[in-house]
Amino acid sequence: MADVKRKDRIGIGLIGSGFMGRCHANAFAAAPVLFDLPAMPVRAILADATEEAAEAGARALGFERATADWEALISDDAVDIIAITAPNVLHEPMAMAAIAARKTVYCEKPLSITAASARRMTEAAEAAGVVTSVGFNFLRNPMIRLAKDIITSGEIGEITGFRGRHAENYMASPDAPHSFRTDPLGGGAVADIGSHIISIARYLLGPIAEVSADCRTIYPDRPVSHRSAERRAVEVDDMTHALVRFASGVSGSLEANWAATGRTMDLSFEISGSKGAVAFSQEHMNELLVFSGSGASAGYKRIEAGPLHTPYDRFCPAPGHHLGFNDLKVIEVADLIESHVSNGQCMPDFREALAVQETVEAIQEASKARTWVRFSTSRSM
Amino acid sequence: MADVKRKDRIGIGLIGSGFMGRCHANAFAAAPVLFDLPAMPVRAILADATEEAAEAGARALGFERATADWEALISDDAVDIIAITAPNVLHEPMAMAAIAARKTVYCEKPLSITAASARRMTEAAEAAGVVTSVGFNFLRNPMIRLAKDIITSGEIGEITGFRGRHAENYMASPDAPHSFRTDPLGGGAVADIGSHIISIARYLLGPIAEVSADCRTIYPDRPVSHRSAERRAVEVDDMTHALVRFASGVSGSLEANWAATGRTMDLSFEISGSKGAVAFSQEHMNELLVFSGSGASAGYKRIEAGPLHTPYDRFCPAPGHHLGFNDLKVIEVADLIESHVSNGQCMPDFREALAVQETVEAIQEASKARTWVRFSTSRSM
Amino acid sequence: MADVKRKDRIGIGLIGSGFMGRCHANAFAAAPVLFDLPAMPVRAILADATEEAAEAGARALGFERATADWEALISDDAVDIIAITAPNVLHEPMAMAAIAARKTVYCEKPLSITAASARRMTEAAEAAGVVTSVGFNFLRNPMIRLAKDIITSGEIGEITGFRGRHAENYMASPDAPHSFRTDPLGGGAVADIGSHIISIARYLLGPIAEVSADCRTIYPDRPVSHRSAERRAVEVDDMTHALVRFASGVSGSLEANWAATGRTMDLSFEISGSKGAVAFSQEHMNELLVFSGSGASAGYKRIEAGPLHTPYDRFCPAPGHHLGFNDLKVIEVADLIESHVSNGQCMPDFREALAVQETVEAIQEASKARTWVRFSTSRSM
Amino acid sequence: MADVKRKDRIGIGLIGSGFMGRCHANAFAAAPVLFDLPAMPVRAILADATEEAAEAGARALGFERATADWEALISDDAVDIIAITAPNVLHEPMAMAAIAARKTVYCEKPLSITAASARRMTEAAEAAGVVTSVGFNFLRNPMIRLAKDIITSGEIGEITGFRGRHAENYMASPDAPHSFRTDPLGGGAVADIGSHIISIARYLLGPIAEVSADCRTIYPDRPVSHRSAERRAVEVDDMTHALVRFASGVSGSLEANWAATGRTMDLSFEISGSKGAVAFSQEHMNELLVFSGSGASAGYKRIEAGPLHTPYDRFCPAPGHHLGFNDLKVIEVADLIESHVSNGQCMPDFREALAVQETVEAIQEASKARTWVRFSTSRSM
Repeated sequence: MADVKRKDRIGIGLIGSGFMGRCHANAFAAAPVLFDLPAMPVRAILADATEEAAEAGARALGFERATADWEALISDDAVDIIAITAPNVLHEPMAMAAIAARKTVYCEKPLSITAASARRMTEAAEAAGVVTSVGFNFLRNPMIRLAKDIITSGEIGEITGFRGRHAENYMASPDAPHSFRTDPLGGGAVADIGSHIISIARYLLGPIAEVSADCRTIYPDRPVSHRSAERRAVEVDDMTHALVRFASGVSGSLEANWAATGRTMDLSFEISGSKGAVAFSQEHMNELLVFSGSGASAGYKRIEAGPLHTPYDRFCPAPGHHLGFNDLKVIEVADLIESHVSNGQCMPDFREALAVQETVEAIQEASKARTWVRFSTSRSM
Repeated sequence: MADVKRKDRIGIGLIGSGFMGRCHANAFAAAPVLFDLPAMPVRAILADATEEAAEAGARALGFERATADWEALISDDAVDIIAITAPNVLHEPMAMAAIAARKTVYCEKPLSITAASARRMTEAAEAAGVVTSVGFNFLRNPMIRLAKDIITSGEIGEITGFRGRHAENYMASPDAPHSFRTDPLGGGAVADIGSHIISIARYLLGPIAEVSADCRTIYPDRPVSHRSAERRAVEVDDMTHALVRFASGVSGSLEANWAATGRTMDLSFEISGSKGAVAFSQEHMNELLVFSGSGASAGYKRIEAGPLHTPYDRFCPAPGHHLGFNDLKVIEVADLIESHVSNGQCMPDFREALAVQETVEAIQEASKARTWVRFSTSRSM
Repeated sequence: MADVKRKDRIGIGLIGSGFMGRCHANAFAAAPVLFDLPAMPVRAILADATEEAAEAGARALGFERATADWEALISDDAVDIIAITAPNVLHEPMAMAAIAARKTVYCEKPLSITAASARRMTEAAEAAGVVTSVGFNFLRNPMIRLAKDIITSGEIGEITGFRGRHAENYMASPDAPHSFRTDPLGGGAVADIGSHIISIARYLLGPIAEVSADCRTIYPDRPVSHRSAERRAVEVDDMTHALVRFASGVSGSLEANWAATGRTMDLSFEISGSKGAVAFSQEHMNELLVFSGSGASAGYKRIEAGPLHTPYDRFCPAPGHHLGFNDLKVIEVADLIESHVSNGQCMPDFREALAVQETVEAIQEASKARTWVRFSTSRSM
Repeated sequence: MADVKRKDRIGIGLIGSGFMGRCHANAFAAAPVLFDLPAMPVRAILADATEEAAEAGARALGFERATADWEALISDDAVDIIAITAPNVLHEPMAMAAIAARKTVYCEKPLSITAASARRMTEAAEAAGVVTSVGFNFLRNPMIRLAKDIITSGEIGEITGFRGRHAENYMASPDAPHSFRTDPLGGGAVADIGSHIISIARYLLGPIAEVSADCRTIYPDRPVSHRSAERRAVEVDDMTHALVRFASGVSGSLEANWAATGRTMDLSFEISGSKGAVAFSQEHMNELLVFSGSGASAGYKRIEAGPLHTPYDRFCPAPGHHLGFNDLKVIEVADLIESHVSNGQCMPDFREALAVQETVEAIQEASKARTWVRFSTSRSM
């Protein structure tokens, strides 16, 4: 019976223990089991708004220590990576403190409430040379990577058209209440979930350069809180439709919609080329549809995720066994640990998240101006 | 053994014997067998560009007489209904002659090459009081009618969003040659097939009042004819994406695309409301997807066409037996015969087709102007 | 204006004007428009149970004359092809009379109520040398032909497994009444619809040689007629599951089920081979799913029906426009006319229908005996 | 900054560090983060065939100690739960030792290589009163639980028919080599994956009481190992089709097939009742299809997994975010920990796994005897 020599420890400091905090904690627990990581992430400190919340969260999520003082967490020597799942408005001060402490920063999307804020964060991180990562987890799906490979390989020819969408229904009822999501600072459907399809569009086709848009508030007011009779005006969009032109010349449309009754996760795209096409929906996240060929036997092929689609093989050696949402976060964390140890770039980083945010703001601006807006993003790829 | 007393005869004069001509002839043959029509359509005269083509066409399509003189066809006493499947540029003179002869006019879409021309035809037809019908056959699908019933019933609540598309791939290759489809007069994807999704959008949600659009020519030139080495510039759109606002306030997007590699007939829509949604694609034309309800058992329901969805029952008494494309034309012709006999309105008529064309032109204008265009159509419903 | 020279006339005598009679009449009307037939079928005489029914039917379905005397119809010189859509128990005497009159016989499935009867009909027809055709219309689908081509080509390797089903729901309610379908002579799910999947299985994989089966009556009694309070015992199966071994050694399962709640037309199969697979369901009758290849981009391909899949092109020159159920009957009638004129074999003929019926009876026998039954059919292909 | 008080520790001893070992380790790491467990599972000792393998496995999977002596692991005081992922032939001695040590036993399926062996294990465990659990993880899917709830509620009426299948393609090639899967002792498709669909069938509809079956070896020999030129005869089935009668009288079919080219995980069923139906495939494991209702708006409803389907909510508070295969194991482990702490029954336990194995053997016996086999299982529910 031998004691096992452990890998070097990387201390994780997690801020926030809500849905995303738990998702992070699970990823930090699972990633070292599933991936052959160069070091062992250890759940060191959890910070939350109060001591009680922090201790309850730390106990539930397997952290060693708890605190209500996120600045103490950041400066603690036991912590190497700062994972930020706090409200969006706090992302900038937290990230700035972590950067100042020369720590790796892993921040949930959106990077911040405005592009200006995100730009400050990006520039500070780059000046300090710290590793950054932003939680656009849907990009981690091996099927998205497969789509990218197919596009890059030329299999579907010159890309001609794009049709992207992120539609859910969590605000479809006029009685869904206000929350951070409807905060005029950084809220709205296009910022909240439109950012996901924008990040995928950029990953697959490069930067968007021109937009026309229609950001629409469907319900003029909503309850101030769950079941409240008091209603307050809504200042953000529930449903945004946009026309997009990529820098490459590809044209298409993009929708961000949190009032799409019947849709729980239609984060989807169809990309057509002169010789073929790829299509995907997060509703069937373990499949990619690929069209190529011609003649009597041409057709859309449904490719199921399997061990040939790295890093699916880390989760299961047999095809058809399905990755789930939380697994995407595990992949994200495994990449983060690799980048932290090698001090290399982790994509999407702050700069990429800034470019997404700039795209969101261009869409919002185009909608206000009722005209096309041409813009360039901080990363032109 | 008794001779059977025939119903009154309605003489059909068909101009054109191409794809659509054959489709019309088939519908005139099948409709009286499947529907209990008030009179019997008889394939009387077929006109085509030459005597030879006309005689061959008439023989193949079961017409009694043939002519290369469409004016003679129109004025012949044996003809009561003029069915026009000739090139678009001829729709106006043919329809005008038929109207002058006080005959029912059944014209393929688009009604004409410009809205101005379509307006002249509409006004002439209304002044003369003749019955008109335009071949937007996809509207005849019982599943589209079911969608309309569901929307009208309030089952899916207040309508909030629209997402419509007609995408095919017949011009997806840069070597697909010029044809009437690429004629600067009335050609292009948004006119050719965009008109179908516009007609459906209007049928389901009423007139579109405002658009922003991006009409794009993907391939700057195409062969002048099949396999020709000579190429000529393309002046029309291959792919159009538009933002739409309906007069009702509903917002959404619309795509017309004949270069959508992998799509043969994605004439589709998703319409969401505060309580539910409906979705449809012509790729599965015998199904309507309907979302309603809430809680643990809510989900999109796949309703298969059956005899409860009139007039499916005219084709088959059992569900699941599928209507096909040509059956839609049979329904269209059955409606036409009913309207002809009762001298009643047949929808979509010339005025409705004009409104579709005005919408097409507003989209084209918005794309040129790079700004939103507000407009009103000739029928505001 | 020229009169059109007609093709030679082929007189059609149709017996029965119910669902299938109408379906036949429509096919005889449409086939000459859509196909380039060597002669023109003319709806000459319709026979039904009474003079009134026959005249009403003939008027509705476009026949020249009507009679309550089917023997007169058969012997009438104006009639060349006898189309039988009468109750199953009458198929034998009608077909025998037609054969005696040396006329082409086009009989609805099942060929007769017992294999013994079907054998008498087959032998008489072959002795007389008349053309025969049996209405297994689902075989006419170009997608089924494509499946056959793919299997024959070796693309999916050596065939290993079969999974077939015909499931509908028209008898799923315990209150669905008795009808000819529940007649102990020739009734039951396996005879009524099992015959369809058997005919497809034979077409694609050759004869079935051994079966074990479970023919089950779900509801012991049913109303004697619609809404009747009187109930009578059911003697036939509602739901049959069978194990099958083909003569080729391929193994699999087969289901015939008219009590499959939720299924309107799941006439489906999946056939696997050492290198690939094909799958089909009549629920999406314009698609064939084909799996071939291996590696990271292997997947089931969804092939949509189009003009490259003969004879789809007779209905439409563009893909994606969908054939419907009635179109299958049009193809069947076009084949019949070709065979009649050339005096050639029309498949499936009486002998093939007999082999299907022998397979049905082997299944029924295996279920009664509770053991495997080995058998051979009248056509071993 | 407060240290966090930990929950009581439960020591885990894992035997085996292959695919399933890793899957277990991941579940033991993730379950305490995602579930509010009554105690904290700690990865104490990992045993594997050699010291090297054990130490490497322990390091990779996060265990404190490693050993090549599984008996030492079982008797170690630091271990409370024995998780067995070793070869099937070792399940009995390992479980017997664990039972003798009065430890909770968590064994991968199949429980053992024969029903006789499984019976010995079951009886020993019950005599000792230890908690047992067997890894039929697909049962843990909330969608399967939803299907059960729907069936139990009566929503789909009296159950009438069953159609079940587990089809994969990992042995579809004649060159897939021998492995433990083809061992005459406990191997073959019906034992390996047929057991999954049998366990689901039993969970949803109760015990199967009678079977007829066709267990078939497609390829008479296979390479003795990967890429070996030497081939050895295959003694087990590649593809089994069976007819089943449940004790309740429900009839149906069942397929187990590891040579189903094109299928990676078609673990699927369709269960019909007098008023509705449910259908599921693991290929879309986050959906359940439910048919109920009648009339023009009846249709199969696609219910997506969400937080209302316990314990999906432990993984994500929003619907549509998908559980994956490994998450099913997390649920299994959470149930195991609960049962261990409460000393309560964990389902499926050894007795249930024994009943599955008895069903497998009845199928094998029926195939050999070429007749129906009536049997009863050790749990008749």
